[in-house]
This record gives sequence, structure tokens and C-alpha cells, in this order.
Amino acid sequence: MNSHVGKSVLLVIDVQAGIDDLYQSERNNPQAESNIEKLIANWRQRGVEVIHVKHNSTEAQSPLRPGQSGNNVKPCAAPIASEKLFEKSVNSAFIGTGLEAYLRENNLTDLVIVGLTTDHCVSTSTRMAGNLGFNATLVSDATATFARVGPDGESYTAEQIHNVNLLSLDKEFCTVMTTEQVLNSIAERS
Amino acid sequence: MNSHVGKSVLLVIDVQAGIDDLYQSERNNPQAESNIEKLIANWRQRGVEVIHVKHNSTEAQSPLRPGQSGNNVKPCAAPIASEKLFEKSVNSAFIGTGLEAYLRENNLTDLVIVGLTTDHCVSTSTRMAGNLGFNATLVSDATATFARVGPDGESYTAEQIHNVNLLSLDKEFCTVMTTEQVLNSIAERS
Repeated sequence: MNSHVGKSVLLVIDVQAGIDDLYQSERNNPQAESNIEKLIANWRQRGVEVIHVKHNSTEAQSPLRPGQSGNNVKPCAAPIASEKLFEKSVNSAFIGTGLEAYLRENNLTDLVIVGLTTDHCVSTSTRMAGNLGFNATLVSDATATFARVGPDGESYTAEQIHNVNLLSLDKEFCTVMTTEQVLNSIAERS
Repeated sequence: MNSHVGKSVLLVIDVQAGIDDLYQSERNNPQAESNIEKLIANWRQRGVEVIHVKHNSTEAQSPLRPGQSGNNVKPCAAPIASEKLFEKSVNSAFIGTGLEAYLRENNLTDLVIVGLTTDHCVSTSTRMAGNLGFNATLVSDATATFARVGPDGESYTAEQIHNVNLLSLDKEFCTVMTTEQVLNSIAERS
């Protein structure tokens, strides 16, 4: 359990309208957006920093290309004027952005990570956060992914892909917690 | 299918004796080491570069700490004098090492990645390779992982963890191929 969770920056990754059009398959955690909204509200109320990351796809057919409506951040996660927004064009929030420099300059060592999708941008950003020396917490029910077929030809549900990816991250790169655990941990310490 | 596979650097990650002691659980792909040995032999025979990455754990109890026998590279993957070796202390082969600078200085844009374990050091290094703009191929049966229990409390076999992690990497960060596909692709072009 991460004792610094209440002081951590809330890092909100790629909660954009077009994410739901990337795959024509079932998604898990339909409540991820409402959990993200709850966490953002809690962070703002406590005056702790929220940092946003937005994906600007460079792929011609992607709904996340700048200029497409899919590039827009969903209303539940829209940044307010005082909050930093870093834009990126690859999965990792730490590649091609000023995020790492900003965190170090401001002595921000602890991150609570939420957003989409579990196994692409969220996993990659969490791995790099951990390996760069940040203390990362990943909120299991404030992220989600989509069902797909693997290179082995087998079909996997969104929930299977989500759960195995969390297993691979937990205790190696981050601590995995639920939204309720994060909010309870903050409430106990306030 | 990666048409540059024959010209790619072979990147061999953490094939170290202590890896098998990290977890007290079943491993998949017992043939990973013999496939790695086959690929290294093929690369050396063709005079294409092999680059090695070795993990020096900073954790007091890790069998991968320098000075422990577990830190040694397994004989199947031992570097020869002319081959570059990068040492690291986190999962990613690109963090805290000169690997990225070396690849760029030498105009090496294509990587075939093998090693241990699928979901920790191999996945993290493959994600960063792709996001840094390298053309990466990951060899599915020249990597392996271990059974574990997830933060959801469910038990997953090594093969389940391995396969889902490959699904999450394939077509987003790399192309997943088998040892046989890699060797056939090289044979067809020579």
C-alpha cells in the first residue's frame, strides 16, 4: 500500500473520445470514466496537482489524430486552466514530452496513474515511471482495455488482457490499487 | 512480417542464471534458451551484430546482484569479446544505459529481441524500442515468464501471462515472430 498516495500527482492518460473507436470489440471497466472523474474531483478539492496527458496520433486513419473529434478529451477528464497538459505521439507519456523534466524540477516523486488503455499507453507509462524512479500507483478500475486476438490466434476478453497486464505491472513497476482503496487511504490520513 | 529481420541487431536481454530463482513457480518455454542459442549462432555466422544486456539488481535479496552466481549470463547466451554488453539496474534496456545512443550513432534501426522475462524486462525494453522509433521484432519462443497470482487474487499460468503480454505488444510496439519464422525469413532472403 502506497502511503504517499494522497500527496501524489494524479496523472490522467489519454481519456479521449476516440479511444472507444480504436477497436471494434468489447471493453471492460465501463465505470473507469466515472472513477477517473471521482479521483480528479478529489484531487482538485484537496489542491493536489492533476497532470493530463493527451495522445496526438500520427496515423492517417486514427480517430486520435489532431483535428478529429476523437482527439478531444472526454468531459469527465477535461483539464482546467491551471492544470498542466502534456501532448505525445507515442504510447509512453515520458517519450517526446516534458513530463519527466517537469516532475523532477518540481520535486514531484509520487504518481497515481489512471487512463486508457491498460495495456498500451497506461502500461508503458507506468513501466517508465517506475524505471525512472518515480513511486507509482496504478488504479485498476480507473483504466480499461479491449478484447483482441493474440499472435497465438487465441481470443482474449478485455478483462483477461486487463488483469494479466495489471499482474505484470504490480509490485515490479507500481502498486495496483482500486479507486475505493485510494480514496479510503486518503480519507484515513486526512 | 518484418522484412529487415536479417539485418537487425539481435538484442539479448537478461539471459542470466539467477532468473530461474526469481520466482518459485512454473516457467513456460523451456526451449527459449536453445532458441536463443540458435539465433545467436545464426547472427554470428552471418556477421550481423549481437548486443547483450545484463541486469545488475540493486535489491539486497536478488539472485541477480553483481557478485552472486545468479548474475552470470547463461552459457547459451554468453557474449564473445567483440560483442557489446550494456549493463542496467532497471527493467528497460534503454534506461541508464548507452544503448539508445550506441544504436543511433551506428545507424542501427532494426532490432530482433530475445531474453527473459517476457512481461518484465523484455516487454519494457520492447515498448521503449518501438516508442523510440526502432523497428522491433520480438521472438515469442525465445522469451519466457513465470506463473503468478495477480492483484485480482487469481492464479495465472506462465503461458497465459506470456501470451497476453505478447498480444499487448504485437503490432503496437513490435512484430511478434517465432524462431522458425525468423530463421526462415533470413534463409529465404540469403
